[in-house]
Amino acid sequence: MPTIIGLDVGGGKIACVEGTAAGAILGRSEVASPAAEPFERALPLLVGLVRERLGIATAAGRRVAALSVSVGGPLQIAAGRLINPPHLPGWHHAPLKERLAEAFAGLPVRVEHDGNAGALAEYHFGVGRGRKGLRHLIFLTVGTGIGAGIIVAGRILHGASDTAGEVGHWRLSRRGPVAFGKQGSWEAFSSGRGMVLLAAAMFPRRWSDNTPIRELVEAILSDDAAANEVVTAAGERLGQGLALLIDAFNPQVIVLGSLAVVLGERLLGPAKRIVAAEALPEAVAACDILPSALGAGIGDVAALMAVLGDDAEHLAQLGITRGGS
Amino acid sequence: MPTIIGLDVGGGKIACVEGTAAGAILGRSEVASPAAEPFERALPLLVGLVRERLGIATAAGRRVAALSVSVGGPLQIAAGRLINPPHLPGWHHAPLKERLAEAFAGLPVRVEHDGNAGALAEYHFGVGRGRKGLRHLIFLTVGTGIGAGIIVAGRILHGASDTAGEVGHWRLSRRGPVAFGKQGSWEAFSSGRGMVLLAAAMFPRRWSDNTPIRELVEAILSDDAAANEVVTAAGERLGQGLALLIDAFNPQVIVLGSLAVVLGERLLGPAKRIVAAEALPEAVAACDILPSALGAGIGDVAALMAVLGDDAEHLAQLGITRGGS
Repeated sequence: MPTIIGLDVGGGKIACVEGTAAGAILGRSEVASPAAEPFERALPLLVGLVRERLGIATAAGRRVAALSVSVGGPLQIAAGRLINPPHLPGWHHAPLKERLAEAFAGLPVRVEHDGNAGALAEYHFGVGRGRKGLRHLIFLTVGTGIGAGIIVAGRILHGASDTAGEVGHWRLSRRGPVAFGKQGSWEAFSSGRGMVLLAAAMFPRRWSDNTPIRELVEAILSDDAAANEVVTAAGERLGQGLALLIDAFNPQVIVLGSLAVVLGERLLGPAKRIVAAEALPEAVAACDILPSALGAGIGDVAALMAVLGDDAEHLAQLGITRGGS
Repeated sequence: MPTIIGLDVGGGKIACVEGTAAGAILGRSEVASPAAEPFERALPLLVGLVRERLGIATAAGRRVAALSVSVGGPLQIAAGRLINPPHLPGWHHAPLKERLAEAFAGLPVRVEHDGNAGALAEYHFGVGRGRKGLRHLIFLTVGTGIGAGIIVAGRILHGASDTAGEVGHWRLSRRGPVAFGKQGSWEAFSSGRGMVLLAAAMFPRRWSDNTPIRELVEAILSDDAAANEVVTAAGERLGQGLALLIDAFNPQVIVLGSLAVVLGERLLGPAKRIVAAEALPEAVAACDILPSALGAGIGDVAALMAVLGDDAEHLAQLGITRGGS
């Protein structure tokens, strides 16, 4: 069975993995992301990472079937062209897929939005593994910002212009912190950035807008009283947004990544309490709210999903049968 | 080509139609809804309406292929069993599909949620007619309450327990009017009921919570200054909810029924202004916001859609090829 090379292109780091059709990671390398450099100057770094992985695979006698890329939006997914990703300021309008396809002639290249790729990773290889009858899953990134990958009837909801799932942008209140240019947005309350802003507003003598999220997370995990108030408030706002998702989509599962994995019930407990009070009881009863089963490894698996998340027929054309789930 | 009998079961009236596979209505009768009576006592009225239509069809030499029912939720759609529809207080837990199938042996019976049926009507025979490449459409009822029928990739999003689209239940604000038991919900601001509550709160000397919506609509349509303030406020809240839908679903079209058809730009103008300010520009640019093309006739066409909205293969089993679109 051939393998897949995956690129996880983030604002902080770029990881390159080789993985199997069952979502197992065979090898991995990582570099700091040249996010502020112009794309054409950063491209050789990407190409070098992939070339190195290809060399390792070939030396081990494995055939690589395709190159899969997971990257933050907004982007045109089928064309693999970035629009104006805030975490990659030098890469606006970068023809990512086209350039990679030029560099690796004969190797099919697929690109997917990182939120969607995360949803596909959990659906096929994470919380969805062995869960029969699973068709509707929402994956929520809770990192610097908030974004969703939405699976409806087994397929990613891309929408009319590939921006479906931009729910971090939802305004939950006319007041509240400002993050990513929008006051009172979901990610202004409940993302990593939002939690810092909330902490600074609630305890201005102790924290500021420039407090590193790591410092706040450490205080939360050590059961600091003030930090617990912050995570409870962020969790309640998280629940407010989850209730909107549940009433609209009636999903079977909502999976939360990043900070939700690290903070666990400290964040999800208050969120579930608000969900129970706010959303339709029938829909609440039908929906499991879970931290990511792939945890810190989700980015690596997600990097493979632009390829592995595709329909069985398309995969068969690449000589791949997806394992797992 | 055979025809379909459709039942539109509302809290105020029940309509029974005969329609073609192209969505044309051949005949129609209507009675007041026995909404408060126990279902088993109301059932003979439904059966009588259908029997009358079947008789007319047979006398004209037409074969009726199936019985299609559109009814408000919550309900179990495949089973055709109502749960606790607020507009049909006597019909809780009614086995609607089962009883109709018993009464008309040999006639396939399908049941759909009225919001979903409206979405399918507009998708195939309304704003979607002749619109190539249409795959993602949201239909929003703006009647007594607010509900949505959501079409993703050409199919209704039913969700895990058939409650997807219950977005009237979304809370937009911690303050504001209370409707259907929830303060500050979308339908507490922007539905017919919500507009009356808003009018009573804004102009308590002139309107009360018991003002008929008809009186308010007449004042709006006659360009009364106070009524214009009310419809503008309701439209802005409508836009707030539409912006959430657009960021989450990135639809190609949102179609609005009932009051949005009657009030037109008086309601949709303020709504679109808020959408442009609140939702992602890429998603706003990709989405048309339109009043229902079927207008007052949408209930009749929707009554056929539990059958006509089905996949081509299933329709073929009934000897039907859907016309239109």
